[in-house]
Amino acid sequence: MLQLYFSPMACSLASRIALMESGLDARYHQVHLATKTVADGDGDFRDISLKGAVPVLVLENGERLTECAAVLQYIADLKPERGLAPRPGDLDRYRLQEWLSFVGAEIHKAFLFPTFWYKDDGSLAKPRARILQTLSVPSAHLADREFLVGRSFTVADAHLTWALLLLRPAGVDIAQWPSLARYLERMQARPVVREAIATEMVLRKAVPVNAA
Amino acid sequence: MLQLYFSPMACSLASRIALMESGLDARYHQVHLATKTVADGDGDFRDISLKGAVPVLVLENGERLTECAAVLQYIADLKPERGLAPRPGDLDRYRLQEWLSFVGAEIHKAFLFPTFWYKDDGSLAKPRARILQTLSVPSAHLADREFLVGRSFTVADAHLTWALLLLRPAGVDIAQWPSLARYLERMQARPVVREAIATEMVLRKAVPVNAA
Repeated sequence: MLQLYFSPMACSLASRIALMESGLDARYHQVHLATKTVADGDGDFRDISLKGAVPVLVLENGERLTECAAVLQYIADLKPERGLAPRPGDLDRYRLQEWLSFVGAEIHKAFLFPTFWYKDDGSLAKPRARILQTLSVPSAHLADREFLVGRSFTVADAHLTWALLLLRPAGVDIAQWPSLARYLERMQARPVVREAIATEMVLRKAVPVNAA
Repeated sequence: MLQLYFSPMACSLASRIALMESGLDARYHQVHLATKTVADGDGDFRDISLKGAVPVLVLENGERLTECAAVLQYIADLKPERGLAPRPGDLDRYRLQEWLSFVGAEIHKAFLFPTFWYKDDGSLAKPRARILQTLSVPSAHLADREFLVGRSFTVADAHLTWALLLLRPAGVDIAQWPSLARYLERMQARPVVREAIATEMVLRKAVPVNAA
């Protein structure tokens, strides 16, 4: 069985959504990112992954895969009939990769990460100024589209949904971008997305940890 | 013919290396990132891409693809016989995606980007402290490997090579990680890599611009 190392409401939420949308069973291990420990007794998270970051997906053969972009595409390709990623070779597959990179680098690593991890050192003025331009990109793209890529839900939507959920705790009002606010509402109306978020919010309240 | 919008020694260098390693002709357009203008007279770079970032690859059908991870995989898949990316479906293809994400998010966006663009606002202590842990990951991986993925050069090597080249201007001494220093030497010994760097260094000296 697949295993996912996650932290509640961290970017591994997208991997949980992808697993649930694809109907794949998995064992979930909660990680405390601040202390790099595994909650269910497996010990030092750095022994699982030197990066000390979630998600880590343990494959059926025991290998460990990291990074949202890789984990999400791996999960999607296990159940191609669910359409969570365009088929390899389709131009839309590169569009999917483009959005996974943009969300992971421009929204997560350039803004959410410093906001949640560097919050008290006064280094946030430039990342905060920059996020407005950053979010104008998906906002324009989604003005007349229901999903990021093609005409159905993909793992890129799982990734962006997670990132948009963290805007409020990061002090950014999504209402500035009506198309993003409507998109997030649509995504949260999906039963799987709602269930995944509810599951992680309960865990997050139980043990507060940094999110991004 | 493919067209690549690039800035000398920016991350688009990896796309140039990929194009040259794959033997694909392309037209190259130089971009001034600081002013968001195109050097050869095409005008406002934001008209080419709302992101205002390189690389932008203009495909044969006129569509524009952005983000290193997507552009590099697209180029690699145009010439599968060159082996610049493992075939879709191979586990190594996800390893390639894992490294593209890591270089793009953890080295580029979390460290090089703030170093070159935020350099004068005193916000760099935490990114600078973090890069040491970040670089320990590829350092450990490359201790007994010649390339990042599999047994030959892939676009992930093009991406990491670019990132490592910028460590010195970013004030980080790669000699701290002997396996990375040896790797960078090996990559720079490749004729295509050497030629791509030489081409962009000449352009960079002609018109100084921020690099990352």
